[in-house]
Amino acid sequence: MHYKAEIDIMPLKALLDPQGKAVSASMNNLGLPEVTEVRIGKHITLNVEAGSKVDASAKVDEACKKLLANEIMESYEFELTEA
Amino acid sequence: MHYKAEIDIMPLKALLDPQGKAVSASMNNLGLPEVTEVRIGKHITLNVEAGSKVDASAKVDEACKKLLANEIMESYEFELTEA
Repeated sequence: MHYKAEIDIMPLKALLDPQGKAVSASMNNLGLPEVTEVRIGKHITLNVEAGSKVDASAKVDEACKKLLANEIMESYEFELTEA
Repeated sequence: MHYKAEIDIMPLKALLDPQGKAVSASMNNLGLPEVTEVRIGKHITLNVEAGSKVDASAKVDEACKKLLANEIMESYEFELTEA
């Protein structure tokens, strides 16, 4: 079966997010001081072919660990839907 | 009131996503040929201070248009939750 995964990868809360900090500062300059605490990560969508949702979940988890996320600096979460 | 926004910014479907293509190819080499159609975008979280959800939504939309997303190459969507 085909599954579609939506993965969010974010910098760990304990770490500085320099890109997010820069954007937060820019919001002020753009006249949007109401916007704060910007954090920037990655959003990844992919298709996975697997026999079951459990199997698909294991494969996406492996893809995250091996390639997509750097677990020293980032955390990830994902949702699977049948496509 | 405080609202939290979760924004997803993805390359437009009509455009090539070279980073996603590279990752799709790497999945094969990593022993995960079941993973295909990888597309990579940005996931942004931020806080926004606004009088109402409609007002908060307008501010996040403005932030996306002015700074976060490049609408020539990217589409965005977001969800707001009261924080």
